[in-house]
Amino acid sequence: MKIAQVSPLFESVPPKHYGGTERVISYLTEELVHQGHEVTLFASGDSTTEARLIAPCAQSLRPEMLRYPWLAYHTIQMDMVAEMASEFDVLHFHTDYLHFPIAKRLGTAHVTTLHGRLDLPELEPLYKRFPHIPVVSISNSQRAPLPWGDWHATVYHGLPDNLYSFVPEAGNYFVFIGRISPEKRLDRAIDIALQCDMPLYIGAKIDKADEAYFEEQIKPLLRHPKLQFLGEIGEREKRELLGHATALLFPIDWPEPFGLVMIEAFSCGTPVIAYPHGSVPEIMEDGVTGYTVTSQEEAVRAARNIHLIDRKGCREAFERRFTATHMAENYLRVYQQLLSG
Amino acid sequence: MKIAQVSPLFESVPPKHYGGTERVISYLTEELVHQGHEVTLFASGDSTTEARLIAPCAQSLRPEMLRYPWLAYHTIQMDMVAEMASEFDVLHFHTDYLHFPIAKRLGTAHVTTLHGRLDLPELEPLYKRFPHIPVVSISNSQRAPLPWGDWHATVYHGLPDNLYSFVPEAGNYFVFIGRISPEKRLDRAIDIALQCDMPLYIGAKIDKADEAYFEEQIKPLLRHPKLQFLGEIGEREKRELLGHATALLFPIDWPEPFGLVMIEAFSCGTPVIAYPHGSVPEIMEDGVTGYTVTSQEEAVRAARNIHLIDRKGCREAFERRFTATHMAENYLRVYQQLLSG
Repeated sequence: MKIAQVSPLFESVPPKHYGGTERVISYLTEELVHQGHEVTLFASGDSTTEARLIAPCAQSLRPEMLRYPWLAYHTIQMDMVAEMASEFDVLHFHTDYLHFPIAKRLGTAHVTTLHGRLDLPELEPLYKRFPHIPVVSISNSQRAPLPWGDWHATVYHGLPDNLYSFVPEAGNYFVFIGRISPEKRLDRAIDIALQCDMPLYIGAKIDKADEAYFEEQIKPLLRHPKLQFLGEIGEREKRELLGHATALLFPIDWPEPFGLVMIEAFSCGTPVIAYPHGSVPEIMEDGVTGYTVTSQEEAVRAARNIHLIDRKGCREAFERRFTATHMAENYLRVYQQLLSG
Repeated sequence: MKIAQVSPLFESVPPKHYGGTERVISYLTEELVHQGHEVTLFASGDSTTEARLIAPCAQSLRPEMLRYPWLAYHTIQMDMVAEMASEFDVLHFHTDYLHFPIAKRLGTAHVTTLHGRLDLPELEPLYKRFPHIPVVSISNSQRAPLPWGDWHATVYHGLPDNLYSFVPEAGNYFVFIGRISPEKRLDRAIDIALQCDMPLYIGAKIDKADEAYFEEQIKPLLRHPKLQFLGEIGEREKRELLGHATALLFPIDWPEPFGLVMIEAFSCGTPVIAYPHGSVPEIMEDGVTGYTVTSQEEAVRAARNIHLIDRKGCREAFERRFTATHMAENYLRVYQQLLSG
């Protein structure tokens, strides 16, 4: 009989130490080979077998057998999508890559928007395996680590044009919005505000992974009376806070694929002071929607001159490039392309 | 146009707080509806949309957007399997449920052995969604939480019959093998050994998740001179240790789907003292391969009488029920059934 054995990839088959599942798979596989069956083992490349070995990865992945509830629900979801696929002209996925194997076999046009950073080591073998899955980037810079993807377009994020109201006259404070994590560089934002002697409002959540960073690096800085730490804030508070700010400080230190809060600021008329990482150079129009800076010195100078930026120009830039209507039009063009191609 | 939008399920669409991806999906979806397209959104049930909502789960899953490298490699693996499916008579999966949506569409007979515990809450909706995926349990008790699975057989794990050698004369010590975690109850094993005034060798690894438990609950107990903590041990050490033990102590406190170490003990002729959880009553033959006990008092009595168990009877039980040959034969019966059904 021709038999495929599909093993988890967490441990080699057989495993080096513990790993009951992989050991049993090994015993079963070798026994079937021994009995004369034609066996193929899909397992990590450090496996040892008399069967034909097909290895999706060179090394076994990690010792802990991690199982996650979210995976069950995404598996259910993909089955639902597959079952109903023929009802649709286009399937638009936003679920990373989980659906790739099934999407390419469904016979319905599909496209995937990649929302995350793409410089993770496991994505190189993944996208080399799936070179013909149509993908959309949310900035051109996001694509850099995966030039072999089947890129159909960059579609910038958009907001409903009435989601934020234009605020013609700003208050007198800076704002920092987002997560508190090393790559978001709240420490830089604090330094800029204090050097300018301006109040800084901080609306930011702290992920579990960043709690130690917050306690050690950020909390000691927050004692200054010019700084207001608000924790995680809701949409309404954010609108208020962002709309009346003199500027949004966005001194990031990582290749952020798309800085949504920047276009939220623009839509209120609030200019942005940003470091030019990731998507920032594509989103910012230097001197029009704020200033792009490469050092704290420049940032402080830009912050002191921020009144030179016309708030109406920021709003106009938003309307010209970053509305939900633009986004939808751009996606519809992609859908049409898929259907006519 | 008829468009499906497939969102991650981590946050509702739109999200309650942060969650850039789900917000953008919401903006896009509503805009497409607004433009007159027929849009279906596959997203968590707490989403709000003008599109048709299809919810694989009632609530969004969790706030952290977790991405895991292992998922990329298992995705590659499933694509490899799918591409080659027609080469095989049978596909035998050991990868939980990740492959269910694609396996059922491949047109090749397939079966999945479930190696883990099945009393996790997310598995109920999952197996209700996939009632016709042929599955095999590794003990009858393992099935209890999922009676609606398409169970084709229980196939007990097996070991190559020459993997361990029969040791006719035991040494004079007990052994505990496995992980150190609350449900494995090393504390009970220690108590049994000390009450019998017997040495206990402990060959056990400590997962990251169990480090605090080890430090707080177990480490203080290990100071006694009768106890030898060896940490994680290799296969060869294990054979030596297990083969010459007076008995394996297996006082578990959880529904272990299959206690592989019990049949390893049998194959050396080493009897087992076990609490009757999970698969234990199916694997143990009380009075033949050791003793099943329900209290520490009984366990100590059993340990003192363990010389009444014939080591040859343990080995014979192994040869009768738990060799790799038996396991392979049982699986081949399942494969044949699938092909003729």
